[in-house]
Amino acid sequence: MESITLEEARAVISAAEKKAAEIECPMDIAVVDAGGNLKAHVRMDGAFVGSITISINKAYTAIAFKQETRHLQEETRPGGSIFGLSDAHGGNLVVFPGGIPLVREGRIMGAIGVSTGTVEQDQEVAEAGASAY
Amino acid sequence: MESITLEEARAVISAAEKKAAEIECPMDIAVVDAGGNLKAHVRMDGAFVGSITISINKAYTAIAFKQETRHLQEETRPGGSIFGLSDAHGGNLVVFPGGIPLVREGRIMGAIGVSTGTVEQDQEVAEAGASAY
Amino acid sequence: MESITLEEARAVISAAEKKAAEIECPMDIAVVDAGGNLKAHVRMDGAFVGSITISINKAYTAIAFKQETRHLQEETRPGGSIFGLSDAHGGNLVVFPGGIPLVREGRIMGAIGVSTGTVEQDQEVAEAGASAY
Amino acid sequence: MESITLEEARAVISAAEKKAAEIECPMDIAVVDAGGNLKAHVRMDGAFVGSITISINKAYTAIAFKQETRHLQEETRPGGSIFGLSDAHGGNLVVFPGGIPLVREGRIMGAIGVSTGTVEQDQEVAEAGASAY
Repeated sequence: MESITLEEARAVISAAEKKAAEIECPMDIAVVDAGGNLKAHVRMDGAFVGSITISINKAYTAIAFKQETRHLQEETRPGGSIFGLSDAHGGNLVVFPGGIPLVREGRIMGAIGVSTGTVEQDQEVAEAGASAY
Repeated sequence: MESITLEEARAVISAAEKKAAEIECPMDIAVVDAGGNLKAHVRMDGAFVGSITISINKAYTAIAFKQETRHLQEETRPGGSIFGLSDAHGGNLVVFPGGIPLVREGRIMGAIGVSTGTVEQDQEVAEAGASAY
Repeated sequence: MESITLEEARAVISAAEKKAAEIECPMDIAVVDAGGNLKAHVRMDGAFVGSITISINKAYTAIAFKQETRHLQEETRPGGSIFGLSDAHGGNLVVFPGGIPLVREGRIMGAIGVSTGTVEQDQEVAEAGASAY
Repeated sequence: MESITLEEARAVISAAEKKAAEIECPMDIAVVDAGGNLKAHVRMDGAFVGSITISINKAYTAIAFKQETRHLQEETRPGGSIFGLSDAHGGNLVVFPGGIPLVREGRIMGAIGVSTGTVEQDQEVAEAGASAY
């Protein structure tokens, strides 16, 4: 399976950490491979314990649906066409910002998930990580 | 318990796949038996990994409540009489379109669940599958 | 992610089914992709409901540890060096025969898992499936 | 709760990785904090997907019972006084070598868990990591 390497995952995490430090919001940052399996994770000092799983699941969700998790937000709201999606998969989908696929030459090679801040902060840090890939 | 055979499940899946190909939306397609247990599943090339479980759970839900999953949508919204249903069963109920019972002579013999597209696409493909039974 | 296609997965399942019919033991047969995610599953008429999950988990385990599940059997017995492995992963590892990686040009592209028979029967049917890849 | 920092966790992982490279066995390496919650994880290229969870659970187990996981092995065998322990906690205890508490001035500040190799290799790499703390 062609997928992200640990060296690449570390570069992604490093770029995300740098952005998290810059905005002064310590984060849980996870990278999964193309199959959705964890490749690397860090919990920055001060980040939430509750965000360990959220960060990993954000990255998983980005693989599972081949898109940024923020794109799932509108349609999963009450009134949306897939309201209830987050309940429908055993509790490991995240339907708000912070998960982004890592793409090379049009192919998804992995994903990053970030959690602890506001969703805007999570997204900003995930984007910083993703742009290092 | 009289229930769907593998040959019948395959015919259902085949009809669903044909429709999915026609609308150019690769799908996860699952068929469960009258007891709600998986009989057959395929993930068409390009369909979502995240939809494996959703498709199986849509089929399960159609058995569990003896109805199409789309009929659960309104009453599970906030303000609805069974809001919270999707949380109430360990994370394996789906309350939006794409799950349909397979009925013969008034008896539910199995169900089909389809996921990856919009809910309209999922429903259309599930109906194509169901009508082959 | 380069991985097994649905057409290939079906050829693997078809060969396994043929062998299962030949030995008169209906089986649950699952194929997962290189990332361990379900690609296709069938429960032959008469196969165990309890073997749905076992067949899927056998295939997952073959991906997870890059080997046939039968190779995990000795060392996970009481007295073995990794006794307790099957408990250590949330309940989705199988440490007895019936799960085999699907390999092409030295790379694991997926895996097959078979369950319902004796472990010798499961292994025989899994081998028949794997040799069709 | 005073606990391991990310910088310290990385030093532990780095020392473990160096040893894993030296013995030519890529590993999953996890570090948890004093509360048993994941602090950092890496899956070296070539390490097992199945060992992601095992490595994290080894580190958790070392915190959970304030000892190296290898010390749980004898008494959890059939005939042992706590046979069944590995089943008794929802599937996240590991009762074989590779998990070691990280201790400073007599206090457990975190733990390392290593998996993919033989238990001897896992233990050797975990010890290399622990001795960097």
